[in-house]
Amino acid sequence: MTKYVYKFAEGNKDQKDLLGGKGANLAEMTNLGLPVPPGFTITTQACRHYLDHGTMPDGLDAEIETNLGELEREMGRDLGQPDDPLLVSVRSGARFSMPGMMETVLNIGLNDESVEGLASQGGDERFAWDSYRRLVQMFGKTVQDIDGDLFEEAIDRVKAEKGITDDLDLDAGDFRALVERFKAIVHEQTGHPFPTDPREQMRQAVRAVFQSWDAPRAVLYRRQERIPTDLGTAVNVCSMVFGNLGMDSGTGVAFTRDPASGRQGVYGDYLQNAQGEDVVAGIRNTVPLTDLADIDAKSYDELMAIMETLENHYRDLCDIEFTIERGKLWMLQTRVGKRTAAAAFRIADQLADQGMIAIDEALQRVNGDQLAQLMFPRFDEKAAAGDQFHRLGRGMNASPGAAVGKAVFDSSTAIEWARNGEKVILCRRETNPDDLEGMISAEGILTSRGGKTSHAAVVARGMGKTCVCGAEELDIDTKNRRMVTSGGETVGEGEVVSIDGTTGEVFLGEVPVVDSPVVRYFENEIDPASDEADDLVRAVDRLMRQGDDARRLHVRANADTPEDAARARRMGAQGIGLCRTEHMFLGDRRQLVERLILAETTEERDGALDALLPHQRADFNGIFSSMDGLPVTVRLLDPPLHEFLPDITELSVRVAVAEARGESDANDTRMLEAVQRLHEQNPMLGLRGVRLGLAVPGLFTMQVRAIAQAAAERIREGGRPHPEIMIPLVGTVQELEIIREDALRVLREVGEENGVELDFPVGTMIELPRAALTAGQIAESAEFFSFGTNDLTQTAWGFSRDDVEASFFSAYLEKGVFGVSPFESLDVDGVGRLVRIAVEEGRAARPEMQFGVCGEHGGDPTSVHFFHETGLDYVSCSPFRVPVARLEAGRAAARTGN
Amino acid sequence: MTKYVYKFAEGNKDQKDLLGGKGANLAEMTNLGLPVPPGFTITTQACRHYLDHGTMPDGLDAEIETNLGELEREMGRDLGQPDDPLLVSVRSGARFSMPGMMETVLNIGLNDESVEGLASQGGDERFAWDSYRRLVQMFGKTVQDIDGDLFEEAIDRVKAEKGITDDLDLDAGDFRALVERFKAIVHEQTGHPFPTDPREQMRQAVRAVFQSWDAPRAVLYRRQERIPTDLGTAVNVCSMVFGNLGMDSGTGVAFTRDPASGRQGVYGDYLQNAQGEDVVAGIRNTVPLTDLADIDAKSYDELMAIMETLENHYRDLCDIEFTIERGKLWMLQTRVGKRTAAAAFRIADQLADQGMIAIDEALQRVNGDQLAQLMFPRFDEKAAAGDQFHRLGRGMNASPGAAVGKAVFDSSTAIEWARNGEKVILCRRETNPDDLEGMISAEGILTSRGGKTSHAAVVARGMGKTCVCGAEELDIDTKNRRMVTSGGETVGEGEVVSIDGTTGEVFLGEVPVVDSPVVRYFENEIDPASDEADDLVRAVDRLMRQGDDARRLHVRANADTPEDAARARRMGAQGIGLCRTEHMFLGDRRQLVERLILAETTEERDGALDALLPHQRADFNGIFSSMDGLPVTVRLLDPPLHEFLPDITELSVRVAVAEARGESDANDTRMLEAVQRLHEQNPMLGLRGVRLGLAVPGLFTMQVRAIAQAAAERIREGGRPHPEIMIPLVGTVQELEIIREDALRVLREVGEENGVELDFPVGTMIELPRAALTAGQIAESAEFFSFGTNDLTQTAWGFSRDDVEASFFSAYLEKGVFGVSPFESLDVDGVGRLVRIAVEEGRAARPEMQFGVCGEHGGDPTSVHFFHETGLDYVSCSPFRVPVARLEAGRAAARTGN
Repeated sequence: MTKYVYKFAEGNKDQKDLLGGKGANLAEMTNLGLPVPPGFTITTQACRHYLDHGTMPDGLDAEIETNLGELEREMGRDLGQPDDPLLVSVRSGARFSMPGMMETVLNIGLNDESVEGLASQGGDERFAWDSYRRLVQMFGKTVQDIDGDLFEEAIDRVKAEKGITDDLDLDAGDFRALVERFKAIVHEQTGHPFPTDPREQMRQAVRAVFQSWDAPRAVLYRRQERIPTDLGTAVNVCSMVFGNLGMDSGTGVAFTRDPASGRQGVYGDYLQNAQGEDVVAGIRNTVPLTDLADIDAKSYDELMAIMETLENHYRDLCDIEFTIERGKLWMLQTRVGKRTAAAAFRIADQLADQGMIAIDEALQRVNGDQLAQLMFPRFDEKAAAGDQFHRLGRGMNASPGAAVGKAVFDSSTAIEWARNGEKVILCRRETNPDDLEGMISAEGILTSRGGKTSHAAVVARGMGKTCVCGAEELDIDTKNRRMVTSGGETVGEGEVVSIDGTTGEVFLGEVPVVDSPVVRYFENEIDPASDEADDLVRAVDRLMRQGDDARRLHVRANADTPEDAARARRMGAQGIGLCRTEHMFLGDRRQLVERLILAETTEERDGALDALLPHQRADFNGIFSSMDGLPVTVRLLDPPLHEFLPDITELSVRVAVAEARGESDANDTRMLEAVQRLHEQNPMLGLRGVRLGLAVPGLFTMQVRAIAQAAAERIREGGRPHPEIMIPLVGTVQELEIIREDALRVLREVGEENGVELDFPVGTMIELPRAALTAGQIAESAEFFSFGTNDLTQTAWGFSRDDVEASFFSAYLEKGVFGVSPFESLDVDGVGRLVRIAVEEGRAARPEMQFGVCGEHGGDPTSVHFFHETGLDYVSCSPFRVPVARLEAGRAAARTGN
Repeated sequence: MTKYVYKFAEGNKDQKDLLGGKGANLAEMTNLGLPVPPGFTITTQACRHYLDHGTMPDGLDAEIETNLGELEREMGRDLGQPDDPLLVSVRSGARFSMPGMMETVLNIGLNDESVEGLASQGGDERFAWDSYRRLVQMFGKTVQDIDGDLFEEAIDRVKAEKGITDDLDLDAGDFRALVERFKAIVHEQTGHPFPTDPREQMRQAVRAVFQSWDAPRAVLYRRQERIPTDLGTAVNVCSMVFGNLGMDSGTGVAFTRDPASGRQGVYGDYLQNAQGEDVVAGIRNTVPLTDLADIDAKSYDELMAIMETLENHYRDLCDIEFTIERGKLWMLQTRVGKRTAAAAFRIADQLADQGMIAIDEALQRVNGDQLAQLMFPRFDEKAAAGDQFHRLGRGMNASPGAAVGKAVFDSSTAIEWARNGEKVILCRRETNPDDLEGMISAEGILTSRGGKTSHAAVVARGMGKTCVCGAEELDIDTKNRRMVTSGGETVGEGEVVSIDGTTGEVFLGEVPVVDSPVVRYFENEIDPASDEADDLVRAVDRLMRQGDDARRLHVRANADTPEDAARARRMGAQGIGLCRTEHMFLGDRRQLVERLILAETTEERDGALDALLPHQRADFNGIFSSMDGLPVTVRLLDPPLHEFLPDITELSVRVAVAEARGESDANDTRMLEAVQRLHEQNPMLGLRGVRLGLAVPGLFTMQVRAIAQAAAERIREGGRPHPEIMIPLVGTVQELEIIREDALRVLREVGEENGVELDFPVGTMIELPRAALTAGQIAESAEFFSFGTNDLTQTAWGFSRDDVEASFFSAYLEKGVFGVSPFESLDVDGVGRLVRIAVEEGRAARPEMQFGVCGEHGGDPTSVHFFHETGLDYVSCSPFRVPVARLEAGRAAARTGN
């Protein structure tokens, strides 16, 4: 016979699957000998049976009855016993905490008779009737699904009649009247009288908890949180203890360490003469937990001892709920407590110091998201909350951090002002590749359109630069160099604004910024052994070193300039995994690129390429210098050529309007023809990447020559360049083969011209589903694979990041279609499967193949674990995310033991 | 020891892998006792060893020597024997015919001594020296890679000096001088004298054949034809026979049946006193093979007997090369001959009739491409080649057939004129969905832009309508309703033009059209048992019936209108696999769709949907009537909404120009706002398909309601509607689940309202890689999968059909990146793998799942075989391709025996 009911003493903390989180921890505390009110847990298995079959499993009722009987014997009174009732609470408790579910029904066992017994036993009639009305109210609301407002309105009516505002001013008679009224509401709403049989009350409550698993709110919550749908919930039946039996009673919460700072000490709150729900309702103010030492020294000492026991036992910060009933301390719940990022690092470090956990375990207690949070500068919270700074609006927290500067509305002003030493915030409706230099010059970026994966957001995150995007309350008026708030307020060019990339808030004026000491540590500005380093920096340093020792994955950075490369190296990057060359085609090179695109003869085209060559060579030389001795993966040109030309609609309008005015411009007209010729319906799926290399003779050849010449220069200068040549957007091995042969020829030629050996690997991005699916073939011509998980996500899902984020991602997240955007965290089932296929089959075809990832997922904690497990050699991410990837790569290796 | 050399007598026709096609057939003829000049074949295995190691395999030289010795003994003279030389030819011969490779070196064994022996033996000095110069010329060109023009120029110089133009006027002395000159050329070009050792000549020739496997032309050819790269070629060494020893000698080709018509008889050509290369050079005219009966009756009779032997033996049309040397017939080559489509059907039918092959075998002797060719009307070839019709230009043969009509330059004229009974050709620069009705009204479509997968081409092929596209010589000037040829000729509206979709030619005037009797047969206009049916129709009928009996795959059609549905049914469709609903949103519905898109309130949107509902219902009712009793898969709306609105650039220009002129139009301005709001960078990857269903509340609900109501109407009218509701562009099961729940609710509601049971399957397209990769999950909510292989190809490869065909497909085909466009024939390695994954995992999750394909590949012969093997239940294609798919499905089943 399956056992469906466990007494608290029969379980333990590792049985969360069967008993739920709450039940497992109640069992653990019971077995530790802590004062837990007796009770029992009905398993998740019983719930699953009920949900599958619509009926309670055979034997469950009898088991409940047996356990309830034992509880009654232990407590010396029966459930609802008229002269001295045993009362119980019924609480849901699933494997994972689920706020969307029914929580609690208290005081089960009360009815018109037992309420009198409770009153006489406790000597407090008001308490007894208050307890009774709480039962009817909770039962009606959560078990019987009655609109809670009906009960609240009844209470308000009584208070209005009496001319009072505080529940505490209601007396026993008032509660007695309210019980009658509440019972009438139940009868009206359900067509049945309120159930007065205590066992029936309990049965209905248990059934309601089971059913709550499938309530729409719970279903949606699980969808969003990716909690499996078939776990079911456990039900905890626990004898009631009361914190509201007078001033020698009370209820409180406690933490074994400060969950905000992580520092040791006594943290928590206590409320005399109250039940837990009163604390939540916030009717009266709590006192600090330390005050309990004065109020009830015995209970306080006992609690302190229990907290020590729990922390030693759980070897972590514990979060506790307790009640004191007439001087007797009872533990109602415990769990490993939530904490801030700083607390997580400090606690892990302290516990390791105290020998409570091994240092490997400490590494598992922190994560990359927490580290990332610690790395951003922040606004001084008190200042921002004060009156001196006016909040202009709020957008999406696209790239965290705090930035202050003068508002500018175009990139050239941003660049100019920044050159003159001004700090600026670049404010645009949305950004495009032309804004790149402006974005580099700015302290932060603010846009009124676009989501978290808009160009502004993506590029800003890539730079580790603060960005608030999609602040729709702000009408950014580029033409008039100003923005107007929804309230009609105007902010002009040069006015100082402050943007908070962590919260999405935008303020007028200069909000004070607090620097991140963790970044200063990574930038080698703080020595962790020095006095300047606080305990947080020391904890970060210790755990980073631990992670670096453990990790197998190398971490590289995506960087396109010598400056970014140098920064990435300081952050611990072991090379560049993605050096994009398209940025080298912008700015003052644009003219040369236009010459290339507009070339009508082979000579014109070759001339344009020859003119570009020295620029590219100089770019590469700079990057190879910054990364001397480390690999630099250079991606040949990827975007479609028309990205370097004006927008077709804007230009068409300009030409047509000029024509209409008789002021045609021959250059514009000629440009328009080129733009029309190159226009594509779906440029992302058009002539780009390797296709461009095959369609525009000489383009990739020029790029490879620039790489080869720069490397030869470096070698002659005594450097150790390690370029890796990467071909983008390959779909079939034939494409790669043709380009690769040409690249090897150029390397050979330049090597011979310079008398040096240029034996650099040529590989490909795997960023199309077909490339992953034919990886075994492609491996024959590729010395490395680098997964471009951004494009792989776009093509596997068939959506363009630029287009879909704004139009339906928010709806998808709300409806639970996604738990998280697949652009933020790798979609393991779909895109991840392609990665696995390519690794397995690529390795089978070429055992020495090197595998990396250079999509943004390379810096995402969850994704890093996946890449580790899949057996990649490195991840590459933006410089700012390098420490995050290092930490997570270390955690992944330490956890799996390889 | 591996055996590397086979005497002809040692092999047989099934050893093509080892001996190549030519060698295997020479062996077969030898063993049939036919007069094949003795010789031997060096295997492909020897070639592979040479290519892998750069050296001949151990023992090969000795084996060659042994075989050559035996040949010498058999022939009674030695290779190059001075007084009476044995001469041999060395020919390459791979598994697959490869025109890109070195073909032949004749007359090996001649040198300064043996040429005299040959002269004295044959009594013909001119012949001997001509043979010698041919050896040096062929050897120099093909073995030693010397530019052939050098030899040709030397000949021309001699002829010029002598004042003659014909090779026949060169005498023995001339050839002797040419040999000297040729040997000098070889010495100059290679630095070595011409090799006079006959065995050395042979060794070098063999080695050169081996090397020719890796020549760039051969590599490219294999890439384009998808011939595996590691097969290697065999080498045939064959004793020489001469057709140029006088008028009692000659050479010819013969076919055992007419390869053009397939009818029985004697077909071939003969040239007296000539070698094969002279026939190719076309210096003199051949005579019909039947003339040989008069020239050399004995040889003729012998040849006729051999042809019968070969046909009986090969049980197929054979193609033969032969030489007569002084009255003695020699067989030089045979193979199963190429034939036209009509010949293929007739021959298969006849051979089955004659009991030479089983009817199942006959079915394998024809294919769908041939059937498709037979279905198109054609221009009368003689008329088109005559002078009375002027060719205006040529484009791509986008959709075959022949069409004649008056040129019109816009769709509304096409519709209007067609209504008045005129036949029209719709001439556009390119077409878009707005042209649909115009295209339906027209006899054919002619465009000056776009490739074989442009909108015009794809839609025309879908309709089975003739289309020539990308005729760039024609400047189609829509505004002035005319087109101008590159020669400056103008064709105005109403002038008659004729377009040939099979050749891409465009003519001025009405070229007479020959109807396809095969189509009339499929349309039930010709009874195959009647006198009206010729032997071709009877052959087609017989083989179609055989295929239908054998096939397991059902064949459905893609059809959006009752007319198309009815036609598809006549063609043998067993249902509709894809009924697109977007066409129902065009034409006079456009206004309602605009109302929907521009709706600013829920009420406006619901109003627009309510107005669309009765139209959709009527559409569905018509289709369900046409397909009564058969399944109709209705795809809910797929394209992005902005496809129903004006183009953003055109509209922007119009609004801007109007503004500049102070003539703003409020409607245009309002429309532009909507267009800008809905504009997407990559609409194919944007808000469409199921995303639209989730983002526009009520849209899919309205469509499902229209389907349900139409089905209920049909049931009440006594019909048997079988709609299947298909959700497009699903990437994850959650999307499908939400839409499916809503659809089931609507079916239930409408069923209850009408008192009928509406239990129709709801399924999904699998057209995104992620859908295929997570098919096991998606199967939980889908009752059927229909593979949308067009979009699956686009996303797996990451290219948009509209954009890439024009920009780089031709280059890709030329460079051998593709052998065939993956839009024409399914890419088995990439897209096909996704299909296989989805079938396997979908079936595992839901064993009763139904699988179909509704992309254009459903009508492609090769792809149909793949779908059969993968275990799909049906393919769906355009009505016109239904017979092709039926035939191929039958062939696939008959071949695999299931």
